[in-house]
Amino acid sequence: MTQNPVRFGLIGTGRIGQVHAASIAAAPEAELAWVADPFIDGARGVAERFGGTVTANPEELIASGQIDAVLIASPTPTHVDLIEASIRAGLPVLCEKPIDLDIARVDALRPLVAERGVPVALGFNRRFDPNHAAAQARVAAGEIGALEQLIIISRDPAAPPAAYIGVSGGIFRDMTIHDFDMARFFAPDIVSVSATGTRAFDPGAREHGDFDTAVTTLTTASGGVITIVNSRHSAVGYDQRIEAFGTHGLLQVGNVQTNTVTLSTAAAVEARPAYPEFFLERYAEAYSAELREFVKLVRGEASTSPTFEDGRAALVLADAAQRSATEGVVVQVEL
Amino acid sequence: MTQNPVRFGLIGTGRIGQVHAASIAAAPEAELAWVADPFIDGARGVAERFGGTVTANPEELIASGQIDAVLIASPTPTHVDLIEASIRAGLPVLCEKPIDLDIARVDALRPLVAERGVPVALGFNRRFDPNHAAAQARVAAGEIGALEQLIIISRDPAAPPAAYIGVSGGIFRDMTIHDFDMARFFAPDIVSVSATGTRAFDPGAREHGDFDTAVTTLTTASGGVITIVNSRHSAVGYDQRIEAFGTHGLLQVGNVQTNTVTLSTAAAVEARPAYPEFFLERYAEAYSAELREFVKLVRGEASTSPTFEDGRAALVLADAAQRSATEGVVVQVEL
Amino acid sequence: MTQNPVRFGLIGTGRIGQVHAASIAAAPEAELAWVADPFIDGARGVAERFGGTVTANPEELIASGQIDAVLIASPTPTHVDLIEASIRAGLPVLCEKPIDLDIARVDALRPLVAERGVPVALGFNRRFDPNHAAAQARVAAGEIGALEQLIIISRDPAAPPAAYIGVSGGIFRDMTIHDFDMARFFAPDIVSVSATGTRAFDPGAREHGDFDTAVTTLTTASGGVITIVNSRHSAVGYDQRIEAFGTHGLLQVGNVQTNTVTLSTAAAVEARPAYPEFFLERYAEAYSAELREFVKLVRGEASTSPTFEDGRAALVLADAAQRSATEGVVVQVEL
Amino acid sequence: MTQNPVRFGLIGTGRIGQVHAASIAAAPEAELAWVADPFIDGARGVAERFGGTVTANPEELIASGQIDAVLIASPTPTHVDLIEASIRAGLPVLCEKPIDLDIARVDALRPLVAERGVPVALGFNRRFDPNHAAAQARVAAGEIGALEQLIIISRDPAAPPAAYIGVSGGIFRDMTIHDFDMARFFAPDIVSVSATGTRAFDPGAREHGDFDTAVTTLTTASGGVITIVNSRHSAVGYDQRIEAFGTHGLLQVGNVQTNTVTLSTAAAVEARPAYPEFFLERYAEAYSAELREFVKLVRGEASTSPTFEDGRAALVLADAAQRSATEGVVVQVEL
Repeated sequence: MTQNPVRFGLIGTGRIGQVHAASIAAAPEAELAWVADPFIDGARGVAERFGGTVTANPEELIASGQIDAVLIASPTPTHVDLIEASIRAGLPVLCEKPIDLDIARVDALRPLVAERGVPVALGFNRRFDPNHAAAQARVAAGEIGALEQLIIISRDPAAPPAAYIGVSGGIFRDMTIHDFDMARFFAPDIVSVSATGTRAFDPGAREHGDFDTAVTTLTTASGGVITIVNSRHSAVGYDQRIEAFGTHGLLQVGNVQTNTVTLSTAAAVEARPAYPEFFLERYAEAYSAELREFVKLVRGEASTSPTFEDGRAALVLADAAQRSATEGVVVQVEL
Repeated sequence: MTQNPVRFGLIGTGRIGQVHAASIAAAPEAELAWVADPFIDGARGVAERFGGTVTANPEELIASGQIDAVLIASPTPTHVDLIEASIRAGLPVLCEKPIDLDIARVDALRPLVAERGVPVALGFNRRFDPNHAAAQARVAAGEIGALEQLIIISRDPAAPPAAYIGVSGGIFRDMTIHDFDMARFFAPDIVSVSATGTRAFDPGAREHGDFDTAVTTLTTASGGVITIVNSRHSAVGYDQRIEAFGTHGLLQVGNVQTNTVTLSTAAAVEARPAYPEFFLERYAEAYSAELREFVKLVRGEASTSPTFEDGRAALVLADAAQRSATEGVVVQVEL
Repeated sequence: MTQNPVRFGLIGTGRIGQVHAASIAAAPEAELAWVADPFIDGARGVAERFGGTVTANPEELIASGQIDAVLIASPTPTHVDLIEASIRAGLPVLCEKPIDLDIARVDALRPLVAERGVPVALGFNRRFDPNHAAAQARVAAGEIGALEQLIIISRDPAAPPAAYIGVSGGIFRDMTIHDFDMARFFAPDIVSVSATGTRAFDPGAREHGDFDTAVTTLTTASGGVITIVNSRHSAVGYDQRIEAFGTHGLLQVGNVQTNTVTLSTAAAVEARPAYPEFFLERYAEAYSAELREFVKLVRGEASTSPTFEDGRAALVLADAAQRSATEGVVVQVEL
Repeated sequence: MTQNPVRFGLIGTGRIGQVHAASIAAAPEAELAWVADPFIDGARGVAERFGGTVTANPEELIASGQIDAVLIASPTPTHVDLIEASIRAGLPVLCEKPIDLDIARVDALRPLVAERGVPVALGFNRRFDPNHAAAQARVAAGEIGALEQLIIISRDPAAPPAAYIGVSGGIFRDMTIHDFDMARFFAPDIVSVSATGTRAFDPGAREHGDFDTAVTTLTTASGGVITIVNSRHSAVGYDQRIEAFGTHGLLQVGNVQTNTVTLSTAAAVEARPAYPEFFLERYAEAYSAELREFVKLVRGEASTSPTFEDGRAALVLADAAQRSATEGVVVQVEL
């Protein structure tokens, strides 16, 4: 007996909402049932391509009785309220990261999430990248022995507009938060955070007191050290690499190459740098895999979806990094 | 003013026919209008997924008056007759390779093709692979100076069933024919063919007097030498590489990698070999690009589609290679 | 007119002393004139192979009147006194790193070095590695624009004996000191140090309160961030890599490979990891180049030899890192 | 009990003679006892640096009674007579390749070599290259299963002077002969030869009726196919690669890299091409290893030195290739 597809209510139809709409439409085990966006034309555009009933009001979507799960892709400040409304309605949630920029609001929601037991998954899509996932699985399987050092290099192609920087919550909460989750994916037992940020090139970062360049060092209870290297720009393209170093070896995840042509001359051996543009291209497969894992969670099957607690832990690390970078001290954390 | 989509009649709904149906359906400038296959369930299955009117009879499709172009993906022995019927009906054709296994039949059709002037394109999809195409363009642009040596390595994952070998026309006409076209893509002025074939491993090849391993050397009018290395199997996966060596440098096209994880231990630096399975995966993009170029040809725009003459030239080279390998002589050719 | 070879007095004939003896013997512009070691058999062994008068007493060597320069390769605690004696005798010095483990002793010597003006060079051999040197020159030439991030990965093959750890001065002063100098080679304007150390695997480090794993973050006056990743062991072999990231690009220095054979099977693409054993093999060329640059310094020619001040700066950074790792604070430095 | 060093008589002190003199001087188990060259200043220069009694007359060297083995590095036309004189004097010989350009002279000498049983080794130095040797050993050990295809790419940096071409015996006897030996190193059971040569760029080749570009196809009794790709020039540098393809996998020997720096920018990922200059640099280690194996042969120990028969077989293949390329036929050989 085949199961009915999980009927999704999608809230938010910006760039990332459209990615999720396409993933839902492409997955046989999911269907797009409702689409909500106060910017009603956005909702209509998505519904035309991928199906679904349209509303400007997310509450109507949650109350429709025609959905099995909610996918929240609306602006960050709306996340907490929409998660709360969804779980009060008994609807499992897949929410884009971060839960909120304010840990106090996250902590206020925490007891309800725990009490209700309705699944809340966080959109840490990188965990589902086939290469990152394979590397994590191999480290977890002991292929390099005990994990001693982890280096995460994560550089965006170009800095966002200054206006975005102003509402982003800062580089650690906005950008590094993905890397904090990746760090916890490989090593969950993080106990301290030390971060350094500088303003090397971006006027937007300078204007808003943010950093454009950051290095964060985390330690684990078992003596491991994690290094996260961030930059808001990269002339070479979206730079997403991981090195896991352990007792028995070194596991490296390189950038994805989209070009296989090499030219050798007397002057140089040269390849065209053809990394995927940015996260939508680089992590396209990951978004689909993320959705499929969430469907399993909704159905009560074994699932690797990161949870509300994962979302909270990443924010705790981001806050600690922000404080460390500002005050010049190592910050102890309990996750 | 936008143009109407080109309405395709697809003949043949086997594995490769289905690939073309999907490409047509995905291209905004094309639509699947008719589908013909004597195995009517195959036609129905394709029409259900991608649209189109169904018939068991290709002649009905050609005579329908509802199509702008014919895509021939039926068995090789039917190609010549279907091309003839299509161009007599004034319909441009995109025909899968080879035109035929018998050069006499190809030559008999040749005057009609020339006389009618209706576009006949051949399905040499590898020309449209982004990496091969980029390499050829760069060689043509003089980046390595004059082309002196070209090495084409082309190995299939596993030998086909013995029954297929029996009707394949032999390794040169069935498999190397793609590499002959690739050779002409880089160096059109080929003047001689020398080939060596052996039976190293495949019982099917032995049973049918075919080769499973072959090396072919071609020379060009300008003193260039082309080497084609073929095997019917490859434990490592589908092996598709090109090296173009010229006065000023070396241009290499490597295999596509689908894995970016590397493990280094005291014993080895090791990557999982993740070449794409076989031609459908390896050349997925190429099939789409091939279709788009053919649409341009149909519309009378500039197009890089290989033609009937290209299909004939590849077969002439295959025949020459077959003779060379059998008789132990170098065979001169005029293309 | 050719110049006479520079006559060297070598003090210390342990492992590194023997390397220098061989470099001196191999360089046409140098000769080994005197060899001193309280362990007189060591001195004799070196003199037999490479020439020179033997003494157990370094002072006799300095006072011999038969040498033009002193190469100090004796134990660290003897360095300061031997430098002082040499420059008081007007003899240029090439001294192995570090000058001393105690910055107070280094600072006490500093005025004399400045006053006398006799060249004192430090044995930071990695600056002379052809790959590191080429990378630094290209960064300095602006090939990547402004330097924003530098990652130095430096891992030894295996931890030294516990007894050595006890007298080493700790990982920052003993091992990272090379990387501090490398950091200054690329970016001299360092202003802060933040370090993290753990004890992940080495009983010797645990016994002596030292770290076996360390990550150090340095910032520069111009907003650059430098990350140094250290481990006292590496199953993969001696791991010595650098990545310089700037406005316009990324410059990477990989490990030296001594094997060019790769095996691809259905299971893996695999190369034998053949990094050079350890520093003597990896930096063999660098030791020779270091000596040649020092000879230029002795002769008053333009030279890139790192100086006493470079030795002192590296120790200041090491002390700051030690304090940062112990107290959990960022330490400001003035070099 | 240690053995006395093998006392060598070196005949010929040109470029390659000097390489051998240095190898002999550097090997503890060998010493340079006599040096002969009609160009007496050459002999004197070598003896000054590496020792030995000097003579203009090779016969005096052979008759001296003070040597244990002869190393022949004189011009090719003198090889046969010097081998004969040496073995008549009971002295083992290491002779540079080729034995002679005329197979008739080689065959005339053959019975004497067989009859006397004095070791005659041939200077096929590439067998001793650590990478080639490792690859061959791994193929022989069955790591890729049965060897089905072997590709040898061998391109010199630049064409020799036209005058040299005129006396070289042609590209197959002069240059490809190394590759013929390499082919036999991997696959001794060669049964046919088919070769193609063109004149693509070199006026010297045109002047003397030689080829500057060649591709040779060899087949083995067991169904294997070997492809040798040669060019007299290569803008990229000395290009020496091997690919062995077998039932279970692919073994590749790449060019040696002497540079580990890579620059990535928005335009390209680029490395400086730093292959070793030419054979003296590329095969430096191989010359030493070759000498050590020959010393074992002299001492009656197990040795991998290629023999007179190996030298003859390579010449037979070269003659067959020359005939094939000239007459356009496949040539059967019995080795």
